[in-house]
Amino acid sequence: MPGEFALIERIRARAGRRDDVVLGIGDDAALLAPPPGHELAVSCDTLVAGVHFPDDTAPADIGHKALAVNLSDLAAMAAAPAWGTLALTLPDANQAWLDDFLDGFLALADEHGLALVGGDTTRGPMAITVNVFGLVPAGQALRRDGARPGEDIWVTGTIGDAAGGLAQWRARGPASAKLRHRLDRPTPRVQAGLALRGLASAGIDLSDGLAADLGHVLAASGVGARIELGRLPASRTLADHFDEPRRWALQAGGGDDYELCFTAPASRAFEIEQAMAALDLPATVVGRVVAGAGLRFDTPEGEAWTPPADGYQHFSGGHA
Amino acid sequence: MPGEFALIERIRARAGRRDDVVLGIGDDAALLAPPPGHELAVSCDTLVAGVHFPDDTAPADIGHKALAVNLSDLAAMAAAPAWGTLALTLPDANQAWLDDFLDGFLALADEHGLALVGGDTTRGPMAITVNVFGLVPAGQALRRDGARPGEDIWVTGTIGDAAGGLAQWRARGPASAKLRHRLDRPTPRVQAGLALRGLASAGIDLSDGLAADLGHVLAASGVGARIELGRLPASRTLADHFDEPRRWALQAGGGDDYELCFTAPASRAFEIEQAMAALDLPATVVGRVVAGAGLRFDTPEGEAWTPPADGYQHFSGGHA
Repeated sequence: MPGEFALIERIRARAGRRDDVVLGIGDDAALLAPPPGHELAVSCDTLVAGVHFPDDTAPADIGHKALAVNLSDLAAMAAAPAWGTLALTLPDANQAWLDDFLDGFLALADEHGLALVGGDTTRGPMAITVNVFGLVPAGQALRRDGARPGEDIWVTGTIGDAAGGLAQWRARGPASAKLRHRLDRPTPRVQAGLALRGLASAGIDLSDGLAADLGHVLAASGVGARIELGRLPASRTLADHFDEPRRWALQAGGGDDYELCFTAPASRAFEIEQAMAALDLPATVVGRVVAGAGLRFDTPEGEAWTPPADGYQHFSGGHA
Repeated sequence: MPGEFALIERIRARAGRRDDVVLGIGDDAALLAPPPGHELAVSCDTLVAGVHFPDDTAPADIGHKALAVNLSDLAAMAAAPAWGTLALTLPDANQAWLDDFLDGFLALADEHGLALVGGDTTRGPMAITVNVFGLVPAGQALRRDGARPGEDIWVTGTIGDAAGGLAQWRARGPASAKLRHRLDRPTPRVQAGLALRGLASAGIDLSDGLAADLGHVLAASGVGARIELGRLPASRTLADHFDEPRRWALQAGGGDDYELCFTAPASRAFEIEQAMAALDLPATVVGRVVAGAGLRFDTPEGEAWTPPADGYQHFSGGHA
């Protein structure tokens, strides 16, 4: 790419530093020094324009989101962010776009102490692949396969906001800036994930929506669940813009919130509430793990409810 | 992506295994257990159709090359391949294409004991980003900044073949299958890189061509070099298809060979030859590190020679 080395130099000049980065951007590979006794958590996500974010998304928001969705995966594993790589495919060597993108990407990296240690820039249709590497003391990662019948099911924060913002954008009608902000600037719940080490039994981040993501936990753990729709935490803004059946659909079926969903024995509830209160992040019990298979949603009247299958097409691609 | 989970399942079913993979594809992040006393080498490369390989490249060759260029970076660091992630953006969920791609990718992964531990599949214009993670005992990595005046400059194998294959493809005239094979199926010199631990003082892989890549070593080390064109190792096939000035241009300016270029004190020459002979891989001294800056090529008659600036446009993007 013409100007490629200039782009790389721009990235290198702004990449964060850590003592455990033996060699950063600029050789054939980065050299990193993982601390003894830790496991390395690795997550990889690609963002494509028009698939993972609306075409009118600001470059700084794209940069933020490209890292946020990956940090959210580390949060869901209770891993502390350490390093990352950034592979940028861009139609042309647009330095202004790159600078704005890096503003969003690196501000979030700095906030979480993540050092950008490598990457690649190529010319082509825009695609952004980020790999992040986190550290977790051996055996303490939060996996999907630890949920047991009788445990509580929790979610952090409020859910449905990002889906509401996307639904409004798609409808081209009145739109809430607050909802759109949740879509464009998701907050990865990194500190919450770290606080849940030793408390939660299983966890996942809500990228594809509660029904889909909790479904992965249930399948991995070999259990089922019942969720009470009346308990799903909704922001005031979401409640103002969407009435009840529509709101449930956004909360249960919509993705992109990047809150954490986790399970824990009821005996841990007080400690969890204390830990989340210390982070100023509400967490809510929304249901219960049950024996058997399947995920059932109950209305406040106790009736079974099913998310509309075609009610919402999320922007977050699934990932391995 | 429609069928995305089916694609991921196809990848997961075929990913290799290693004892140090605590948790592979299928959770929010992979969990890996780096051995104590080692540094982690991380490399990231993106391949885009029409930029990094000809449009008519077979899917299995693309899969091979996507991993090979990354393994080559680990080789250049003297790191042993361990794990990798694969981010695939594809225009549609084409299972036949994916199966062929994985044939090439995973055969090479298995050959080098690399386990695929994560990734992402998204819909969009084709782009492939691979991250590889290698292990090297702390302090033993081969970096770019260790070359010292008076040392020999070596290259492994033969160089110029891939550039010759690309030049023939571009000219749409008679083409050698052997040269094209070197372009499509580069062999990462992983074992050579490992054998050079403690022997070489600096190293790089030849992706962008000898002039450009050796230039990076010289800049990082703060030295210059003189290369004798008459010593550049050429395959019989290259010599049959390209006469001398054209061949030099391919060998000095052309990329995509993925041989190693490294420096070493003359006192190590015998050990290096022994080590390379044990791998059945020729290595050749092509010049010498000198004090000062700049890279000079000498013809067999001792005249200074400059690679034609526009003689060759390589397919390998640079990378950070």
